[in-house]
Amino acid sequence: MKEIPIGLVGYGTIGQGVAAVLAMNGEEISRKLNAKVYLKHVVEKDIDRPFDVPLAQGVLSNDLDRLLNDPTVEIGIELIGGTTIAKQIVEKMLKAGKHVVTANKALLAHHGKELFQLARKHNRCIAFEASCGGGIPLIESIRRGLIANDVQAMYGIVNGTCNYILTAMIREGKDYAVALKEAQIAGFAEANPSLDVNGTDSAHKLTILSSLAFGQDIPFECIHIEGIDTISIEDVRYGNELGYVLKLLAIGIKEQGGVSVRVHPAFISKHDPLSLVSGPFNAVSVYGNAVGHTMFYGRGAGRMPTASAVVSDVIDIILGNAGRTFNELAVLPDVAPKADIKPMEEISSRYYLRLMVIDRPGVLAKLTEIFGRFNMSISAITQREGSVYDARGEAIVPVVVLTHRAREGNVQSAIREIAGLEVCTQEPICIRVVDEHPEWQ
Amino acid sequence: MKEIPIGLVGYGTIGQGVAAVLAMNGEEISRKLNAKVYLKHVVEKDIDRPFDVPLAQGVLSNDLDRLLNDPTVEIGIELIGGTTIAKQIVEKMLKAGKHVVTANKALLAHHGKELFQLARKHNRCIAFEASCGGGIPLIESIRRGLIANDVQAMYGIVNGTCNYILTAMIREGKDYAVALKEAQIAGFAEANPSLDVNGTDSAHKLTILSSLAFGQDIPFECIHIEGIDTISIEDVRYGNELGYVLKLLAIGIKEQGGVSVRVHPAFISKHDPLSLVSGPFNAVSVYGNAVGHTMFYGRGAGRMPTASAVVSDVIDIILGNAGRTFNELAVLPDVAPKADIKPMEEISSRYYLRLMVIDRPGVLAKLTEIFGRFNMSISAITQREGSVYDARGEAIVPVVVLTHRAREGNVQSAIREIAGLEVCTQEPICIRVVDEHPEWQ
Repeated sequence: MKEIPIGLVGYGTIGQGVAAVLAMNGEEISRKLNAKVYLKHVVEKDIDRPFDVPLAQGVLSNDLDRLLNDPTVEIGIELIGGTTIAKQIVEKMLKAGKHVVTANKALLAHHGKELFQLARKHNRCIAFEASCGGGIPLIESIRRGLIANDVQAMYGIVNGTCNYILTAMIREGKDYAVALKEAQIAGFAEANPSLDVNGTDSAHKLTILSSLAFGQDIPFECIHIEGIDTISIEDVRYGNELGYVLKLLAIGIKEQGGVSVRVHPAFISKHDPLSLVSGPFNAVSVYGNAVGHTMFYGRGAGRMPTASAVVSDVIDIILGNAGRTFNELAVLPDVAPKADIKPMEEISSRYYLRLMVIDRPGVLAKLTEIFGRFNMSISAITQREGSVYDARGEAIVPVVVLTHRAREGNVQSAIREIAGLEVCTQEPICIRVVDEHPEWQ
Repeated sequence: MKEIPIGLVGYGTIGQGVAAVLAMNGEEISRKLNAKVYLKHVVEKDIDRPFDVPLAQGVLSNDLDRLLNDPTVEIGIELIGGTTIAKQIVEKMLKAGKHVVTANKALLAHHGKELFQLARKHNRCIAFEASCGGGIPLIESIRRGLIANDVQAMYGIVNGTCNYILTAMIREGKDYAVALKEAQIAGFAEANPSLDVNGTDSAHKLTILSSLAFGQDIPFECIHIEGIDTISIEDVRYGNELGYVLKLLAIGIKEQGGVSVRVHPAFISKHDPLSLVSGPFNAVSVYGNAVGHTMFYGRGAGRMPTASAVVSDVIDIILGNAGRTFNELAVLPDVAPKADIKPMEEISSRYYLRLMVIDRPGVLAKLTEIFGRFNMSISAITQREGSVYDARGEAIVPVVVLTHRAREGNVQSAIREIAGLEVCTQEPICIRVVDEHPEWQ
């Protein structure tokens, strides 16, 4: 049986997962592929720390050149993360004639175009199924499976940390800070979770996924980003009472005026299949003009799920399929046309607003006058009885408003005006309500 | 730009969908593929009937030989359905040196092995993404995306007709017969729906999907099949009260003692992501030993979704990927090892039982004695007050039982014994309760 040696850089969580998958399923993979895939060089900065997954003698080293200079190794896996050293390593591997497999969404979101070009120059490919949605075969489903479609929209829950935190808030009524702490203890949030909870990680993935789905070059810088780090449990509860679940969504919509690409918290209906995506799971709904609504679900992170995707890429390269897809389909951002991006203030959405106001005659009239002036039509409004009082003993009450579709720019203007009212006691809360996308429109 | 002529046999619903997709998205496909795909020959028995989707002059004929003898046509699409003439046509196309794309699950379930062998003999491939799950990129996700996994189990809602009917029963409380009638009027059930509602169509798809997922040869004849045509609205309601939703599931589980492959109605929890798959939608949950739980969701039938999959196969063949996957991966049933099939009576499951019994002292004691003797442990039991009376004026009451896991053979024996009791007034109802599969076991 043919033996195929592989190189790997970065022997952390995912790197060890790759070794574990090859150890656990190597026999089955060999049977299907009629070839034995094995790790010949594993390069790691700190080779003296303990590892969970042992390697054969002589495989582990801190010498990248061993990998680069070995002509028998045609595939290199980059799993160190980050965008500086990782970029240099990928460049070196491509220049040394290796195909590259990477799980590094930040690298591809920021430098994908440049790296794809470099790969083409050296007649090599970059495979990156593991960069989005962990083990879900998402990239290839969008790029190949739905290729006959003009993709209209995609809505993704693509950050497991945020989804884990939001699920704990929704199901257990926990505050954000408590839920984050527990996610860290459970291993679903890192010590420094800011890239996850502020939406940046989701935006990295949206850059990659929306470029592929729409076959356009969509730079990371064009994405509007809001995180979950400012979400209050009150709004999770009020939304729940109204029949909605709060998720952090990565959204790409092709519409009149350009492509809208954005990451923000959103209330979605309890009947939307995305609403059942809980805990560390991820899912992406993709709407094609032929296929209608499709959804891809699974674990978006973690050692073994991510390694599953990495190894599938390695096999795809060995079969020659990854190379053909990379070279012959004009869908990657370095060969696709530049997208027209729709400005955020031009999008239209429904909105959930929570306004904390002093319970005084005429306040509702004032609020509704402002809504009317900014063309915001109210679909539901509730004012609760107050239980909090200001310094003068006046009750402060939450007014919860659901709007019909309105223009984002108008809503932001209305909110600014409301925030300036004397009766408004805190910054208004505004969360977009995202309905299921219409199929075939 | 290179032009790639395609042949198509069968200009019915899906055939016209293929023409519609190429008309609607041809430009975008050409841009991505750098080649223009077009229908050169469309062969249809009855060319005089009206068609929704017009073809260019000279494309439509009833002459298969025009397609077979045209050396410029390297890809033939079979969309006539059925297993006799369709088989001959696929054989002729392969022998004439054409790659074949088909959406025909019945053909592949019954004759896949033979046809795959014939394709290999002629160095051609058969692509069949559209045969299961309509437009969902399911086949390729399982065969390529999850290739690094040892797949442990799959649970699929793969028949849109049944799911449409069951959704109407669950949501609107309709009787089976009424729901079926409405599905026919809405175009989601055929005039003769028997292959759908009796589970055969789901079993065809399970044959294909389980063979690929497990990399084993699983003959259609090994699949245990039960349909939804005997389901009563009462049981849908009782199940609902207990927190369960009724679905027709196609199940494949690799376990001790062999592979269990079966199609039957099943109660699943309202928290299972499959429970939100409603109306004509399909979804398949696949559990890999590395990736954990994944799910693929979308429209499982219909003109445009199915055509989306057919055209993606055509493009995959043009790229050369389909051929490599077909030839180089030992996963199709003609080159994979024969599966050990676990006998149905050996499986273990939880069960929902509804027993209509005369409300007489000692009846519950008798029932529970029988359960105990057959090692069936009760997890919940409810007896309702009676509102129906027998000839002697004795009340007939439903006793609804949920069991813990029990052996199928034991449950069937217990049911036979209960059916023979004098107090049992009708054949006991038995529906399996299927819990979410444990990940990584």
